[in-house]
Amino acid sequence: MSLAEILPERAGFTMGAVLADPSLGASRREVDESIVLFEPRTPANALYFIEAGQVRVYQIGHDGSTRLSDIFGAGDWFGIAALAGSEDYGNRAVTVSRSVVWTIPVDRLIQALGRDSSLTRKLVAQLATRLEEANNTAARMMFEDCNQRLVQTLLRFSRTAAATSQEDGGVVLRITHQQLAQAVGAARETVSLGLTQLRQKNLLRTGRNRLSFNPIALEQFSRRQLANGHPVANGQPVKVE
Amino acid sequence: MSLAEILPERAGFTMGAVLADPSLGASRREVDESIVLFEPRTPANALYFIEAGQVRVYQIGHDGSTRLSDIFGAGDWFGIAALAGSEDYGNRAVTVSRSVVWTIPVDRLIQALGRDSSLTRKLVAQLATRLEEANNTAARMMFEDCNQRLVQTLLRFSRTAAATSQEDGGVVLRITHQQLAQAVGAARETVSLGLTQLRQKNLLRTGRNRLSFNPIALEQFSRRQLANGHPVANGQPVKVE
Repeated sequence: MSLAEILPERAGFTMGAVLADPSLGASRREVDESIVLFEPRTPANALYFIEAGQVRVYQIGHDGSTRLSDIFGAGDWFGIAALAGSEDYGNRAVTVSRSVVWTIPVDRLIQALGRDSSLTRKLVAQLATRLEEANNTAARMMFEDCNQRLVQTLLRFSRTAAATSQEDGGVVLRITHQQLAQAVGAARETVSLGLTQLRQKNLLRTGRNRLSFNPIALEQFSRRQLANGHPVANGQPVKVE
Repeated sequence: MSLAEILPERAGFTMGAVLADPSLGASRREVDESIVLFEPRTPANALYFIEAGQVRVYQIGHDGSTRLSDIFGAGDWFGIAALAGSEDYGNRAVTVSRSVVWTIPVDRLIQALGRDSSLTRKLVAQLATRLEEANNTAARMMFEDCNQRLVQTLLRFSRTAAATSQEDGGVVLRITHQQLAQAVGAARETVSLGLTQLRQKNLLRTGRNRLSFNPIALEQFSRRQLANGHPVANGQPVKVE
């Protein structure tokens, strides 16, 4: 979700200028790699915007296990709990590279929403879009088997800051098998096996903490699979009522 | 998500009066039980508000299998795809009882957003809250085993129109095992076994297409389980990176 997309009609303003608008009370800071921006119990009172770098957001389970939920890059914003009026963020946000990050007090931003109807409409549309995607992700956990979810997760991350485009139309995705497993919602061994199968089909190359693939070829493969496949949930076929 | 919560500050207006505001172009209709309000391929050009009755929204898998996604009742609104600017709804909405339903053309509603900053702030907060919940549901698919998800789903539905409060503090939830299984993301047999275990612990009573339980007792049980439990993903423990 890009700030540029929310604010394109503020002609004559750069993103920096908008954020520097004193009425928003935004503050800018440069942050090293591997710095925690917030923890699950951090009070949710600000929205975060990324000017440069990369931030990953993790959900934390009751036993401390983690799930990579989102990868954000330049122009993206996060910290949805602040907009929801939640007490704390509930997640952990960590910089993956040296980053430049803006924080905006959420009460100021909400006041700005009331003043700027164009900003408002775009924010509502972006929130609704993210909600649709989140609902689809939850449905996928039921309708699709682990390998199908692996392919969908690779495609999703190929559109984030973790991916670098290549000249041949492919992307290089910087991610470990463990992080990918967290995002897919499966054991690392299961995901590694799925990656091996994709490699054997020449749909993917693997390297140290990196994966290379052509998103268009992978998407076509996925469609063929779904057209022929038999989605299962927890190993049992699901019937229509 | 209640319309009353979105619009409480329009003092002097009842919900009906707001919806009858000609500038919104809302239309009201009475609908029989088991009527499909929209299908996955229906163009998403209106938001739906329920004045009376009950509507359930289902996600549809590639093979036609379904997942009960949401249960809405009087005062709730749905049809998020229209706000997201999506081409079609992507889901199926069906009345569960005789209902009174309002549809509001989404372009009109979006214009109203720009004019009414109080409405806007509440809508943004509600969207953000639903997004947080959807993200948590997806995380739960990974962090929690099937029985834990069953309990969370029972608790979630106990706060919807499908539940009727009892004098003893309990609720009666009208739902079939198959519908519950769709919502949990598990096979019907697995969910039936989980319900039997809850019954044996005196946390639940089962009847024909109905379940009775005390949400507070069930929540306490769930907390104890999570405190002692060992969440698994696809049968494999998940490690922190």
